[in-house]
Amino acid sequence: MRDKRRGVYPGTFDPVTFGHIDLIKRASRVFDEVIVAVGENSEKKPVFAQSERISMLLEAVKGIPNVMVEGFRGLVVDYAKQKKAGAIIRGLRMVSDFEYEFQMALTNRKLNPDVEVVFMMTKDSYSFISSKLIKEIASYGADLSDFVPDFVQKRLQQELRDG
Amino acid sequence: MRDKRRGVYPGTFDPVTFGHIDLIKRASRVFDEVIVAVGENSEKKPVFAQSERISMLLEAVKGIPNVMVEGFRGLVVDYAKQKKAGAIIRGLRMVSDFEYEFQMALTNRKLNPDVEVVFMMTKDSYSFISSKLIKEIASYGADLSDFVPDFVQKRLQQELRDG
Amino acid sequence: MRDKRRGVYPGTFDPVTFGHIDLIKRASRVFDEVIVAVGENSEKKPVFAQSERISMLLEAVKGIPNVMVEGFRGLVVDYAKQKKAGAIIRGLRMVSDFEYEFQMALTNRKLNPDVEVVFMMTKDSYSFISSKLIKEIASYGADLSDFVPDFVQKRLQQELRDG
Amino acid sequence: MRDKRRGVYPGTFDPVTFGHIDLIKRASRVFDEVIVAVGENSEKKPVFAQSERISMLLEAVKGIPNVMVEGFRGLVVDYAKQKKAGAIIRGLRMVSDFEYEFQMALTNRKLNPDVEVVFMMTKDSYSFISSKLIKEIASYGADLSDFVPDFVQKRLQQELRDG
Amino acid sequence: MRDKRRGVYPGTFDPVTFGHIDLIKRASRVFDEVIVAVGENSEKKPVFAQSERISMLLEAVKGIPNVMVEGFRGLVVDYAKQKKAGAIIRGLRMVSDFEYEFQMALTNRKLNPDVEVVFMMTKDSYSFISSKLIKEIASYGADLSDFVPDFVQKRLQQELRDG
Amino acid sequence: MRDKRRGVYPGTFDPVTFGHIDLIKRASRVFDEVIVAVGENSEKKPVFAQSERISMLLEAVKGIPNVMVEGFRGLVVDYAKQKKAGAIIRGLRMVSDFEYEFQMALTNRKLNPDVEVVFMMTKDSYSFISSKLIKEIASYGADLSDFVPDFVQKRLQQELRDG
Repeated sequence: MRDKRRGVYPGTFDPVTFGHIDLIKRASRVFDEVIVAVGENSEKKPVFAQSERISMLLEAVKGIPNVMVEGFRGLVVDYAKQKKAGAIIRGLRMVSDFEYEFQMALTNRKLNPDVEVVFMMTKDSYSFISSKLIKEIASYGADLSDFVPDFVQKRLQQELRDG
Repeated sequence: MRDKRRGVYPGTFDPVTFGHIDLIKRASRVFDEVIVAVGENSEKKPVFAQSERISMLLEAVKGIPNVMVEGFRGLVVDYAKQKKAGAIIRGLRMVSDFEYEFQMALTNRKLNPDVEVVFMMTKDSYSFISSKLIKEIASYGADLSDFVPDFVQKRLQQELRDG
Repeated sequence: MRDKRRGVYPGTFDPVTFGHIDLIKRASRVFDEVIVAVGENSEKKPVFAQSERISMLLEAVKGIPNVMVEGFRGLVVDYAKQKKAGAIIRGLRMVSDFEYEFQMALTNRKLNPDVEVVFMMTKDSYSFISSKLIKEIASYGADLSDFVPDFVQKRLQQELRDG
Repeated sequence: MRDKRRGVYPGTFDPVTFGHIDLIKRASRVFDEVIVAVGENSEKKPVFAQSERISMLLEAVKGIPNVMVEGFRGLVVDYAKQKKAGAIIRGLRMVSDFEYEFQMALTNRKLNPDVEVVFMMTKDSYSFISSKLIKEIASYGADLSDFVPDFVQKRLQQELRDG
Repeated sequence: MRDKRRGVYPGTFDPVTFGHIDLIKRASRVFDEVIVAVGENSEKKPVFAQSERISMLLEAVKGIPNVMVEGFRGLVVDYAKQKKAGAIIRGLRMVSDFEYEFQMALTNRKLNPDVEVVFMMTKDSYSFISSKLIKEIASYGADLSDFVPDFVQKRLQQELRDG
Repeated sequence: MRDKRRGVYPGTFDPVTFGHIDLIKRASRVFDEVIVAVGENSEKKPVFAQSERISMLLEAVKGIPNVMVEGFRGLVVDYAKQKKAGAIIRGLRMVSDFEYEFQMALTNRKLNPDVEVVFMMTKDSYSFISSKLIKEIASYGADLSDFVPDFVQKRLQQELRDG
């Protein structure tokens, strides 16, 4: 049975940012249980391996009640169904997000009409942060303490130096 | 105490459309209880009185479980707090909706940081329906059966003839 | 019978601008016959009466082959059907146009699935011209020769002085 | 001589979707002859070869009167000129489409001022379908019967399995 | 002679918000002299008289170096020319702002090609604040201390009570 | 010390277009000194080497007073700081530009709150020109004289033939 109190928050999280963490906190206030679902994303070639992205998220959400972190592969709707989640949670920041998200949500609805998509908004001062931009900035050795937790900054700088 | 299982869906509903009804159904699958909150809206001069808009909504949501309809005045965040609702529910259809909704949601968040705003999407084939457009079309005597329930169409035609 | 070679270009044209004229020229190259349909628009309180807007359009399109100007009232789709037109022609300038136009077009399609809506683009250097802005500027006595034909500028200044 | 009754509908069609087919039907009601022009698109590395994309389109438009399918290479405006077409037909779905299409249309107009670009809208319930998304979903073995004809789904699954 | 070091920041400022004040501060760092130009705006029926809006602005910008506040009527480009300003300064917050501002800027450029329009961005956490929304909220007696200076809040509440 | 009269206009300029040149002219009227900063952009694999892009820009801005051209690597904010520039200048053309630019500007502001970002608009008839589109068109041997200076067209055609 589908459980309306469970929401799945899917993403690549390469790496997790203050924006993601804020959204997870907010989602945990609306849902009884939030599963942060870390995708494989073999196409986009993430900087961090899936296992590493999961372990950084586990560290980042420590202390937020009722949040679980898991890896997944395949379609989000299939994963949500398997987890008996009633909703897929997505963050909205910009108009271009919005259109892509709409397209995805309408496609997911066709694939599985039983799962609703709910959109939530991150804190305004985090709304411009993107994992992509952070990786770009990090490659120049800039200070990232406004964008990601310290342990993520360290891991990212290490990765860019070694990788 | 705030109850995360209760969501408030505020609007003018002048009149209720198939788009609104679809969104209420979807919200009722995500929340344990959905309160449809019908605003006074003295500024916009609605075609129907608040009491009439409430009574049309009651008729329209008959059979959707766990949905209540109420009138309210004042700020939505105050009403949501008074009702101990954990979330305000808003429908998203277009980019221009999106920006206005963001502005409202960020303002509401400042006024009451305890209430989250969640956005949901109506069925694609209802996404272009707006109460405003329907009233415009109705004034030319067009058939509205694709946009609103029959009893709403009758009430609207009567109102535009008499009013 | 519907005639695919006939297109209706509806609007308020209060007053006609270089942008409108350019679009009519372009439409006349795609359709065998273009009917410029001047709406009553009693709600928006136009500066010029419908008959005057028609007469300015007649003057403005003189010399463009296969263009007719007519007044209409009621729904555009009904008018297009009555005129046996296969298409409604609309100009697109901006993203906000786009969304409103989409909403209108999808509504029209529900009301009459036999009439297609085609969108065309005005010349880039006319794309920012709007009748609304022109009236605002005219009220300050500014030179409008980049925006409207001379005879329109004269009529507008006269109207704003007298009206 | 340019023939205003002939329209060119260019694209990659990798693969053809219900959205494309719906647009071709609509275009065939506005133009006397519609040439579906299948681009080479060597850059984007399509899943299907141009010849295969043409053959799927031929199958898909069977029964729509006055539609031809052809391959082309080079600039669309040059192809349209060579075919004596009066208009290039493009589908509009979203705001981001809109901006890209505008940029392309204005560029094409500079390259050949004799060819108009007309935009048309697909059926609302097809508006979110994109060839890109379909290929992504297909790679997970999902059911595509809401998005593409059966014979396309079979060919796509075969291609993704073998390719 | 036009002075490139002087910028005009026009608006209605009904009333001045933290967003406006932040933008004025930023502009004062880019220009040698910033003239805040308070429009009459007889059409929109502002809550505060022009003289009052000027006096609140004077209070609000006290301490920001090189800022002047003045009332104006007529076209902004004419006012900028009369003040020998090299640039008109406008704040950008949202996509819908952006389109309206573009339309205005291109129109102004036609009216006076000598004055450039430069756009600046307010602080992210002020970006959603609008005078319109603030007046709406104020009418319900909400706390405005996150949006406007205290003396503005007092004046606004007084005005809404008395007016 | 930061100098408010100096602005940095960063970009890839691969190659410089009439749109860029128009923007530089406009910026030179607002700032006392404009530094056109040509990025390395090793990621996007430009058609022209950085040194070549610089030399084409030098040719293109000959005669515009107070304009310098330089190469840079690293973060724009760091470069602006090093040059003691008070502002980063960016061109705005479309809504999608706008969102990306906002995200960049807000990120830059976090990295260095002392540098303001000002946005300016190119001439309307150049607003649709993009270096990306020009390279695409050039590969088909089309005439580019509406988009880039002659010497750029020659160099581009040579590069595409040889490279």
